[in-house]
Amino acid sequence: MALVLYERLCADDRRPSPYCWRARMALAHKGLAPEIRAIRFTEGDKVAFSGQAKVPVLVDGDKVIHDSWGIACHLEDAYPEAPSLFGGPGGRAVTRVFNHCIDQGLQKALGPILIPYLLAVACPEDRAYYRQTREARFGLTVEQLAARRPVYMEALQPQLEPLRQRLAETSFLCGEKPGYADYLAFGEFQWARSVCDRDILAAEDSALRAWRSVMLDLFAGLARSVVAFDTAA
Amino acid sequence: MALVLYERLCADDRRPSPYCWRARMALAHKGLAPEIRAIRFTEGDKVAFSGQAKVPVLVDGDKVIHDSWGIACHLEDAYPEAPSLFGGPGGRAVTRVFNHCIDQGLQKALGPILIPYLLAVACPEDRAYYRQTREARFGLTVEQLAARRPVYMEALQPQLEPLRQRLAETSFLCGEKPGYADYLAFGEFQWARSVCDRDILAAEDSALRAWRSVMLDLFAGLARSVVAFDTAA
Repeated sequence: MALVLYERLCADDRRPSPYCWRARMALAHKGLAPEIRAIRFTEGDKVAFSGQAKVPVLVDGDKVIHDSWGIACHLEDAYPEAPSLFGGPGGRAVTRVFNHCIDQGLQKALGPILIPYLLAVACPEDRAYYRQTREARFGLTVEQLAARRPVYMEALQPQLEPLRQRLAETSFLCGEKPGYADYLAFGEFQWARSVCDRDILAAEDSALRAWRSVMLDLFAGLARSVVAFDTAA
Repeated sequence: MALVLYERLCADDRRPSPYCWRARMALAHKGLAPEIRAIRFTEGDKVAFSGQAKVPVLVDGDKVIHDSWGIACHLEDAYPEAPSLFGGPGGRAVTRVFNHCIDQGLQKALGPILIPYLLAVACPEDRAYYRQTREARFGLTVEQLAARRPVYMEALQPQLEPLRQRLAETSFLCGEKPGYADYLAFGEFQWARSVCDRDILAAEDSALRAWRSVMLDLFAGLARSVVAFDTAA
């Protein structure tokens, strides 16, 4: 059966989307190796068959699933013999809560930090679109966002604190083995690593750095193998 | 077997501690009705038998457990026939992550808002201690904290957003039934309701208000039955 994942493409074959990395890692967790088709920001028409224009989109045989959470739930339900992403129904429910925590917390804190860097590695055909949509979202120019980086880096710190606290207790957010909650958080770090030539983690943030390194090693180094800045080596 | 929960006491028999409400709700979830012993801020010696001075402390027969997370895990393990707090091992792991999210997010945002109100309802013997420890924590006087309320109320909003998003999908954070993740978040609202005569939720925050009202009704209105301001009616 055909298994195809549509994800975001940037220049130099970079794959920055945190949402798409959630799907990539979840597929690997289930032992699945989809064909990857990467599309630019202004190529939403290429996934119009999914009824919307965003990535990730997963095609699994005759099923088409968009949205990273929808994909995770599909994989958990369609491949129950493979290792669980959630660890049971309670895990699925609370992982969804954590999904919202990441989207509304860490991701919103990283956005204004990473947008100037992403613009620099967006495909040339996408740059006007990317600049316009992001500047409209923040009411600031990309250059103004870049100038405020120190303020945004400061605001990022409390968003990292729950992860630090958890990783002081266990190897992964999900305990002794990684699960979807780990992929939710990791996608944000992979986004950073894909576009930004400066590490978002300080040298002394050792527990988070160690976890990130292990996440990069998972599945034969899947996330480490793509084009990225090696700040998180 | 003796089952005793030590919790925090304020004036007029108020019980403000969010940590203690986590334990209270978790006990009720398991169908357990402990004897409640309430102690003031400066009566930590009354739980010195637990090896530390904070509440909640649960005494369950010959076991003594302190820390709200420790209590939740004890209840889940010691009472496996009763309804699960976590919904399986995956649920327990990710609920712990959410525990850290609440502690580092919603709770830290509410602290500077609620401290001036709590000081007003602290037992007279505790007021000097409470003022001194909280002013040292923030480097601001209680009066300065109170004056900055509008700023702190603004900063509270993003902390509520993951809860709003989740409650747009399901009745409880844990899905169709409440679980420990609900009690984690609810403890913060019960803290507010116990000490503050102004609702921390805006009138238009309807999904959160509806959830809070249902949480107050759980277990024959356990959380509604205590001395509190009826702002969250």
